[in-house]
Order: sequence, then C-alpha cells, then structure tokens
Amino acid sequence: MPIDYTVIKGGPNGIEEGSIHLDDLKPTEVYVKITHAGMMGICGTDELYKQAPIGQGHEGVGTVQAIGAAVTGFKVGDIVAWGFLHKTCGQCEQCASGHDAYCLTREIHGQNDMHQGAFGSGAVWDASILYHVPAGLSPAEAAPLMCGGATVFEAIEERNIRSTDRVGVVGIGGLGHLAIQFLSKMGATVVAFSTTESKRAEAVKLGASEFIVGAEELKKTAPLNHLLITSNVIPDLGSYIGVMKPRGIIHLLTVDFAALTVPAFPLVVNGISIQGSAIAGRKNTVKTLEFAARHGIKPLIETFPMTKEGVEAGMTKLKEGKVRYRGVLVV
Amino acid sequence: MPIDYTVIKGGPNGIEEGSIHLDDLKPTEVYVKITHAGMMGICGTDELYKQAPIGQGHEGVGTVQAIGAAVTGFKVGDIVAWGFLHKTCGQCEQCASGHDAYCLTREIHGQNDMHQGAFGSGAVWDASILYHVPAGLSPAEAAPLMCGGATVFEAIEERNIRSTDRVGVVGIGGLGHLAIQFLSKMGATVVAFSTTESKRAEAVKLGASEFIVGAEELKKTAPLNHLLITSNVIPDLGSYIGVMKPRGIIHLLTVDFAALTVPAFPLVVNGISIQGSAIAGRKNTVKTLEFAARHGIKPLIETFPMTKEGVEAGMTKLKEGKVRYRGVLVV
Repeated sequence: MPIDYTVIKGGPNGIEEGSIHLDDLKPTEVYVKITHAGMMGICGTDELYKQAPIGQGHEGVGTVQAIGAAVTGFKVGDIVAWGFLHKTCGQCEQCASGHDAYCLTREIHGQNDMHQGAFGSGAVWDASILYHVPAGLSPAEAAPLMCGGATVFEAIEERNIRSTDRVGVVGIGGLGHLAIQFLSKMGATVVAFSTTESKRAEAVKLGASEFIVGAEELKKTAPLNHLLITSNVIPDLGSYIGVMKPRGIIHLLTVDFAALTVPAFPLVVNGISIQGSAIAGRKNTVKTLEFAARHGIKPLIETFPMTKEGVEAGMTKLKEGKVRYRGVLVV
Repeated sequence: MPIDYTVIKGGPNGIEEGSIHLDDLKPTEVYVKITHAGMMGICGTDELYKQAPIGQGHEGVGTVQAIGAAVTGFKVGDIVAWGFLHKTCGQCEQCASGHDAYCLTREIHGQNDMHQGAFGSGAVWDASILYHVPAGLSPAEAAPLMCGGATVFEAIEERNIRSTDRVGVVGIGGLGHLAIQFLSKMGATVVAFSTTESKRAEAVKLGASEFIVGAEELKKTAPLNHLLITSNVIPDLGSYIGVMKPRGIIHLLTVDFAALTVPAFPLVVNGISIQGSAIAGRKNTVKTLEFAARHGIKPLIETFPMTKEGVEAGMTKLKEGKVRYRGVLVV
C-alpha cells in the first residue's frame, strides 16, 4: 500500500515543509496519522535541532492508519504516541537493564539519532518504539508527557524519590509544572523555587506545598532530600547546596552547554550528589503515561496549528518564555 | 580511679604537648592506653586541624586499661580503635538509618566536633564510639583503616559498587592504595589512574588490572561504571567524564576547598553523577574492619615515634607527598 505524508523539518534556511512517499510498509512498521505534537522551548532539544536537516518534534501523538504484516501490538484506530528516539540495540547492558535511553550504540546528535518526525501529517515507525495512550489521557495532553513529562518521571523513578521526601523544583515551566504535579500526587512535600512571584498561585494549585522566591527566602528553606533543576539555564547551584540535607541529590534535567561551577567541600562533607538525568527509556515512559492517566495529571498547554507558520509562531513564543507551560501543535 | 595521660595537640604556635587528669571514669566511659595512630596528609583533616586547640589525630588504636561501671561491650585488655568523631544524637533520620556520620546535630568544625585525641599516651571515650579490632588485623594496620579506609569503603558500600563493575581510582596514595585493595578483593575490575609511571608495579601488586598515566592513555580507557577521586586535590573532571559509562558515578572523596568546574551537558545526556562522600558512620566502619581482616587487606605504612618531634616529622613528610602510603605513629 503506497503511503504519502508531509513533514515539517529543519533546513539551512530554517523551518521548511517536505513530502514523503513510501511504496509500502515493512512488516514491523506502523503508519500513524499525526494529530498532535509537543514543542520543546528555548534551549530544549527542538531548538537544538532547528538547523538540522531532519523532521522536527519528538513528542508525537496520532491514530494508527495501517500496520505491517508482522505487527501484533497495535491495530488500525489505536491512539499512539512516541518520544525522543534513538536506535537501541536491545543487547547492551543499558538496554538489557531497562535503560535503553542510554543504549551504548547510540550517537548523541549522530547518524543513528532518530529525532525526526512529530511535526507533519504522518509518520512511519517501527512498532517497537510506539506507546499506547492510556484511556483518561487526551491526545493533546499526552504529547507533552512524551519528552518533558517522561524526563521528570525518569529522575523520580530511577533515583528513588520517596513520598516521605522534601523535594525542591527549580523552574516552574515546561518540565517544572509537571514535576510539581507528579511529586504532589505521589505524596511528597513539594517546594517550588521561582524567580517570579507571579507563578505562586498556579504552583500551589498544581500541588506545591511551599513557594520560594529570591535568595533570602532560599536561605531560610528547610532542608531538602532532592532538588530537580528544570529551568532553561542551570542556576548558581552553590546557594542550593546549602539547603540540601546530608546525602541529598540535586538532579540536573536542564540541557545547557555552559560549564557548571560548584564548591567541592560541601558536596564531600555532606555527601551530596549532582546527578545528570536525561530522557526516559521505554520502562519509565510507560510508567509516566500510566501514572498521569491514573492521577489526572494534565500538562497546561497552549495550542498552535500544525503548519509551517504554526511551528514558527510556537517556537518564537517559546523562545520568549511566554508559553504557559507547553506548546502543542494541533492538526 | 584517677587517670592521667598526655596528649599531643594543636595550638597557636603549632604542635604542643599537654596533660590530662581525670578523678574518675563516668559509668559509660573507657580509658584506653594508645599504642598507634594514623596520620592524614596534606589537605587531609589533620592538617586542617593543626592550628586548632584540640588534640590531634583521628585514627587511634590502643588497649583498654579501665572501664566505667556501666560498660559491657569492652573489657580490660581489649584492643580497640576509633575514627573521626562527631557527637551523634541517635535520633535523627540520618542516625536512625545508619548514617550517623551525617547526624543532623553535628557542626562541621564546630563546638561538638570531637576530633581530638589519637596522638598521645591515652584517651577516654564513651564506649559507644569505640570499635573492636578484629583478629587478623595488627593494631598498626588497623589505624589507617579508621578514617582513610572507612572513607573508601563507605563509597563502595553506600553507592552499591558491584563485582561486575569497572572502577577507576584516581590518586594512588593514602586512600587510593586501600581502594585498589578493597575493589580487587570484591572482584571488581580496577583501573588505577596516576600522574607517575613509578607507581605502576605497586598498583598492580595491590590489585589494579590496568594502570593509566597521562591524558592520551586516559582518552583510550574503556568506559567505567564508577570512578573514585582520592587524590590530594581534585583533578580536572572534564576529561574523566568522557570515560564514564552512561549512568556512571564519579565519587569525590577529596577534601578540597577549591571550586569544581565541569561541563553540564555530558552529565545530563549521559546520566552521570558527581557524588560527594565523606567519612563512614558506625555501620560501614565495622564492615571496613571485618572485610580488611577477612581478606588480608593491609595498608602500606611508614612509622614515626609518638612524640611531638615524631608528629612534626610525619606531618612534614606527608606534606611533601613522600610517605608511601600512610604514616602511623607508634608508642
């Protein structure tokens, strides 16, 4: 069966449209009609790839239109989603231990980076990289969970954040507003750190127990077990180290190409760690969707049309920091 | 029973001797005649406290001379040891979870810092802070395990370093030469990093599988699960981040007052953490002594007499980096 769809991709002159024709699906492939796609903002990975000659977007949601002869896990009409994609080998120690996001054969920004394809009219994927969107999550709400939400949930799950912990969230944005909801629903005490008083009411509504603005308030904060850094740029961590409990963990989720400078002595004497954490693998992406559906966790979204102009408008507004809190393209 | 002993302590003019008189032991106290004491080197904690008006040394070993009326765990003639001491409350979440080294009531370099008293002729301690030296460990070999050895073992135990891991050790010195032995005896692959070819034969004899010198060799090293930084000063971590496996952990054991600068992006995208780790609490100090005795792990030591002159000679040689690998004062 011939398949034709359009894609919105990066190019030397910025965003451009293109078309894809396939003569037929391979046996394990699925053809999805895209309905929604999440957008990552400034310093996020969409911005990073804007110049690259690959399709944009890595938070796709759509409806299955056709399946290859060997596909058993999906059927026509299913609502499916996909996230940030690398080829995975399924064989290395990372893949075999449920950490396929760190597959040893991946190349960061390299040739086997499959970051293409959530912006457009359709996509063809191997069935192994698709997820079912659970009942209770709308397609528009599922999209921002596929990268932003799963990245937060990966840190929570893999680093054993507990319901008895005091957990700080720095940056009330695309990732941070989801972190507050996840942590609140799991019963943790959530302390939101912001640079602006204007987000207080919303943060509390999302589940924050405490809302901290400015350096003086920060110093008086009761000690934290964990701190999630979700801001667009990494803040000066020195002052946050002072409010960590002994053996506390600072989780870096921010994609930032700057260097990080911290005083070494308080890390050592208090047994504190700085823990980088990237996108979730399959295991925690499934858990993210299930947990969000079960607890009614909803990204706050602003929609744009799934067109070249819509992508450009969304990217601009994200860059200006004016989207509250996630942009979603809608067909 | 009146008790008299001498101590060698810090003062405004450097090392000085003093004498202590007690009319009697309190019910839970133990009077120990000191036989051996380990010395920490430059940038280590003895150097840090050299100016302080408190007794020097925090790796003491001796023989029980008398016990208070309520002491049941020790008897006259027992060989006992003690390490770096803070008062602990026994009640906070850190104490109650076996992390008493991080007791929430401790004050770093503060008034309840009990860092005094392994250099001298005797010491009086509450029985709760003493350890039995197991059969198979000589008193001289036990001393350097009480701070240096236990600090290494704390990182290994608490951070779940496994026999299947490739583990790097940076700095073949007081801590590093013990780290190589512990890791080798637990069946891990040990990769020793040094700035000098001269330590190769000894590192291999201690249990290193690979010995790496210089930046070019470093780049070609197969990836590591863990890396223990035990050098006197923290090296540039940027190049080491490049040889960590995804989700690898860099353990900082070095007491260094400098700032630490690392590139943030590779930490995030590879899920790597930088983990500060300090002295062990009671749980892992007991395990250190038991494991060392069971596997015949022996610090390589150089002895000095337990006198003011001996302390000064040892401190000087440590500062020059010429002790291979731990200085021990002997009565």
